[in-house]
Amino acid sequence: MEQEIKVCVYGATGYTGVELLRILLEHPYAKIVSLTSQSYAGKRLSEVFPSFLPTPLGSMFLTAEPEEDFDIAFLCLPHETSLELVPELLKRGKRVIDLSGAYRIGDKSKYPEYYGFEHTHPELLDKAVYGLPELFREHIKTAQLVANPGCYPTATLLALYPILREGIELDFVIVDALSGVSGAGRKTSQKFHYPEMEGNAFAYSVEKHRHTPEMEYVIQRVYGKDIKLRFTPQVIPAVRGMMAKVYTRCEELDFVSLYKETYEGEPFVFISQEPPHLKHVVGTNFCLLYLHYHRETSILEVISVIDNLSKGASSQAVQNFNIMMGFGEGLALKRLATFP
Amino acid sequence: MEQEIKVCVYGATGYTGVELLRILLEHPYAKIVSLTSQSYAGKRLSEVFPSFLPTPLGSMFLTAEPEEDFDIAFLCLPHETSLELVPELLKRGKRVIDLSGAYRIGDKSKYPEYYGFEHTHPELLDKAVYGLPELFREHIKTAQLVANPGCYPTATLLALYPILREGIELDFVIVDALSGVSGAGRKTSQKFHYPEMEGNAFAYSVEKHRHTPEMEYVIQRVYGKDIKLRFTPQVIPAVRGMMAKVYTRCEELDFVSLYKETYEGEPFVFISQEPPHLKHVVGTNFCLLYLHYHRETSILEVISVIDNLSKGASSQAVQNFNIMMGFGEGLALKRLATFP
Amino acid sequence: MEQEIKVCVYGATGYTGVELLRILLEHPYAKIVSLTSQSYAGKRLSEVFPSFLPTPLGSMFLTAEPEEDFDIAFLCLPHETSLELVPELLKRGKRVIDLSGAYRIGDKSKYPEYYGFEHTHPELLDKAVYGLPELFREHIKTAQLVANPGCYPTATLLALYPILREGIELDFVIVDALSGVSGAGRKTSQKFHYPEMEGNAFAYSVEKHRHTPEMEYVIQRVYGKDIKLRFTPQVIPAVRGMMAKVYTRCEELDFVSLYKETYEGEPFVFISQEPPHLKHVVGTNFCLLYLHYHRETSILEVISVIDNLSKGASSQAVQNFNIMMGFGEGLALKRLATFP
Amino acid sequence: MEQEIKVCVYGATGYTGVELLRILLEHPYAKIVSLTSQSYAGKRLSEVFPSFLPTPLGSMFLTAEPEEDFDIAFLCLPHETSLELVPELLKRGKRVIDLSGAYRIGDKSKYPEYYGFEHTHPELLDKAVYGLPELFREHIKTAQLVANPGCYPTATLLALYPILREGIELDFVIVDALSGVSGAGRKTSQKFHYPEMEGNAFAYSVEKHRHTPEMEYVIQRVYGKDIKLRFTPQVIPAVRGMMAKVYTRCEELDFVSLYKETYEGEPFVFISQEPPHLKHVVGTNFCLLYLHYHRETSILEVISVIDNLSKGASSQAVQNFNIMMGFGEGLALKRLATFP
Repeated sequence: MEQEIKVCVYGATGYTGVELLRILLEHPYAKIVSLTSQSYAGKRLSEVFPSFLPTPLGSMFLTAEPEEDFDIAFLCLPHETSLELVPELLKRGKRVIDLSGAYRIGDKSKYPEYYGFEHTHPELLDKAVYGLPELFREHIKTAQLVANPGCYPTATLLALYPILREGIELDFVIVDALSGVSGAGRKTSQKFHYPEMEGNAFAYSVEKHRHTPEMEYVIQRVYGKDIKLRFTPQVIPAVRGMMAKVYTRCEELDFVSLYKETYEGEPFVFISQEPPHLKHVVGTNFCLLYLHYHRETSILEVISVIDNLSKGASSQAVQNFNIMMGFGEGLALKRLATFP
Repeated sequence: MEQEIKVCVYGATGYTGVELLRILLEHPYAKIVSLTSQSYAGKRLSEVFPSFLPTPLGSMFLTAEPEEDFDIAFLCLPHETSLELVPELLKRGKRVIDLSGAYRIGDKSKYPEYYGFEHTHPELLDKAVYGLPELFREHIKTAQLVANPGCYPTATLLALYPILREGIELDFVIVDALSGVSGAGRKTSQKFHYPEMEGNAFAYSVEKHRHTPEMEYVIQRVYGKDIKLRFTPQVIPAVRGMMAKVYTRCEELDFVSLYKETYEGEPFVFISQEPPHLKHVVGTNFCLLYLHYHRETSILEVISVIDNLSKGASSQAVQNFNIMMGFGEGLALKRLATFP
Repeated sequence: MEQEIKVCVYGATGYTGVELLRILLEHPYAKIVSLTSQSYAGKRLSEVFPSFLPTPLGSMFLTAEPEEDFDIAFLCLPHETSLELVPELLKRGKRVIDLSGAYRIGDKSKYPEYYGFEHTHPELLDKAVYGLPELFREHIKTAQLVANPGCYPTATLLALYPILREGIELDFVIVDALSGVSGAGRKTSQKFHYPEMEGNAFAYSVEKHRHTPEMEYVIQRVYGKDIKLRFTPQVIPAVRGMMAKVYTRCEELDFVSLYKETYEGEPFVFISQEPPHLKHVVGTNFCLLYLHYHRETSILEVISVIDNLSKGASSQAVQNFNIMMGFGEGLALKRLATFP
Repeated sequence: MEQEIKVCVYGATGYTGVELLRILLEHPYAKIVSLTSQSYAGKRLSEVFPSFLPTPLGSMFLTAEPEEDFDIAFLCLPHETSLELVPELLKRGKRVIDLSGAYRIGDKSKYPEYYGFEHTHPELLDKAVYGLPELFREHIKTAQLVANPGCYPTATLLALYPILREGIELDFVIVDALSGVSGAGRKTSQKFHYPEMEGNAFAYSVEKHRHTPEMEYVIQRVYGKDIKLRFTPQVIPAVRGMMAKVYTRCEELDFVSLYKETYEGEPFVFISQEPPHLKHVVGTNFCLLYLHYHRETSILEVISVIDNLSKGASSQAVQNFNIMMGFGEGLALKRLATFP
């Protein structure tokens, strides 16, 4: 019989934190023993999120530091905080799933430019396993530290993986991606104030976005050579959901077969015959892919949809947790999208 | 050990039908054996609702009539269709949970005015149990036919029940209620076309609404005397969720204690200290109540929020199913609201 | 020929300020000479609101204090700031339209409880004209100081005025009102962060709201006796628009005729035969009223819709401006709602 | 002094029709004499669109055929209907602005594949002037027939024009574009039913879209050679607004200067220093362009935002009308976006 695992969620009151709690509540073997929050320490969880009122977890206190021992930690923290906490936890023998970007890129030279800090623990970058199960499942099983992928990289890498693995020659790669507003986090800002965001949409970080070097790094590992991406993220007036459209020029192949083979047996990646809708995956751990090759221009387009907070963050973290613990990979992750 | 129950869902492709399927998929003892649909017979479920693509249920065919035997039927059908199907199913010994309005009002004289038909099976109106567990749990246990309540009546009756049961003198009762657009069903119409409904809100059926006699009938049963309601339903630009505000004039009492006592032990009804938000309950079977007594006017206001498609329809139907079958009442119903 | 009027807009970068600018730009005789802003002083208007990029006004600088002389000031300022600025401007001979609540209630005793300050200039409360043209047009013409009404009071008082003026006996008055989120202003807050407000709705300030004494004060003036209101404001997921439903118990009358007579000739108030939609008035200075008398309960319900930022604030301010200056009352105010 | 022009609007009750009426109401020289509608003939305009209640136009009757003579016709009709009506009107000496696609593409061979009909009046294709004023103003002045551009082509061609005109070598051109739902028209459909579209987004017509040959045809005329486009339209949960992102690979230039020069003096096209938001242009005739050249990949990206119903349809039609009549080009078109 499976053993109960004691879980600590650091940073429980951001969007990835609260999404993680909702999922872990449905997990039969995860026992949440500590919830940390700097902003809300001393409050009960249901005071911050009244949707937890009906569960016992709702009356649990948020604390500045964990007050019980645990087996594994989920870190839903700012990059800088994760950066310093991870080595400390590893030293104490804890396994760690880090949802920040602090350990995702193996090349330490990218951090000053993209994250604004020198990486203080570069020796751990090699030990960190990039937590995209469809690419790195075997490494995740035994990992002490999993760097849980960013949302744009998750959607994009699942769209590119079959052709990268196949080593197909790609002339350029353009990633044009839409995200729901929750991707920007829980901190309020003028442009995400409801009256300014309803009915609005805009591109941002067109010149530089942290997820670009993350995607390029993983591509290099899988593909064996460098690809420079052109990446344009955009925000649309939806709470959740992400659609990445990946454009590349290459020779024609039977792409549908290639993708179906690559993802055969994968519990969370499906090939769709029609362009998928955000609403097909919102609230779930699923990724739907759609393929179109345009002969007149030799351009292959792959459309990939996920939920930015779920497969793009918290449910993927639980998928990694299941793999690390040897549980069924789909535990607590079978929920379908609410429709409508 | 509990037994698997064979379930047929009639009218599986309306909003209450598809919501029911999503919930039943998480139920350990419900085995869906038939899905009927007039509009989509011959198609696979996932062709109509691609969110079911990742489950085996997604590849099940919709059929015009059930093609396998079953123990219990959920009827997500038009009122007129339910009206005629119910007696037929009862004759065949099936238990029935009817989500339409065909058997909700015990007084047959209301049907011509409010439903546009003479009730053809008035003898069954006495046998039908009104499926609001918090009021009629004992009758539901052994019911052959459960008339699953309307959404507005669910929200309103839970708001009124404690003071009705207490027999408090009420000078008038005004129900002013907001509903998400899904309450109007899946059939398209000009006013619910996205460009016309975004940013819009309006009252409708101000002069006459089917839920008025339903509420008045149940009030009479619980309260022992007639109350005429003033009821104004409104639609707001949200998919799901319902907020009923019930205004009445009466003497001051310790209403919070009264409500807490009445609903003590109820797994799905909670008293909130702040006016509750739709988002606290969307996607769940919960009802949150908020009480305010205004001394200057002697007006008591009770605010009640539910999800119109869940506690107001399909999850309440599953709650009734659990009660009828002797299962734990919360099976498949513990899911919290997705936040944000 | 009409003369150009030099206008200063204080607090130009809040929602009522920017809405006022948009309207004044279409005004043939208003010349905007100064725009003040504490938060954005030193920036050009189009840096804060890029929608002004295509107009010369867009390149005008926001300043901490007006830097040119003017004839009339619109005050889109916090209550406390208006409170002190108004007497100073009046002393300098300026006419003032104050969009704050600082001078709306004639009874100074209400301010500590509802606004949190002692009124420091009670002698001006008598001089301030309540700027609801349909009720007080004659006084507005010659006013030095117009207290521009709140949004809820505008919608509610237009709904009540005909029966108040007629002196009809009213048993109680309940105001249940919905507002778009812009009514809460431009300052960000957690509950109006897009991901938390989309698909949400909730009641707020149920126990106490500043607009209650404002409405009660004007009712007393028009009706000649006190009425205590039960008022429940709610916010819905829309940017703009307000719907007040006013419930009262009284004898039956030919209400439609009464309302049509009362508002005959009014350029901005119309009686609708169907419950009006927010979208019929959003962006405009119009108010649509709908009447329903329910004989079973003797309850009269009046539904009133306006745009909270327009007729509920800035376009009403321009209507007052037109009246004060002797211009055509509809100048710059004839724009219809954008549809869809 | 300018003369009053008698205008007939054919197809007044679709979204482009009603948007045109709203704009023409603010036009000093346009006198609307006829409104046709097949679906609503016999009704008054305000019965269909209550937002017109406060104007005299609101009480005008919709008729199956025009019942008064006119100088110019705006055709807001299905393609097939325009196809046959245009020659008839031209024969009667009327000037015509056709908002359908029936006369936009000069190459008749495209119609069967993209519009599903053989073009029955190919002799008129040469006479039709493509109504994009920034490209073809001189031809529009004297045109009898203006083919008003599609929304995606308007946004895309304004983004491409300066580099096309300059003859810059372009390796490929990818157009990835987002549209508000109103672009799909007023006819209801399941996927645009409010509960299914809120929070949703999806790509459509990925394999073939009518606007592709329209764009390619105009590009050929301006650029002098063929370019095959890769075009992916998407719908997002907003009522109005369109954002086209045009990606091409070319040598680096001072693009900002090139674009500023090209559009110098244009009243409706502006270069933005930040990626523009839909809300900056919704409800207006403006187009905002943003330029970014990515040296690592030699990819130029131009982001173009317009309102699909305004600059992408009806206000552009009025701009063409002004040019044809010799009026100031900005008459009735100076309105700014409502904010928020």
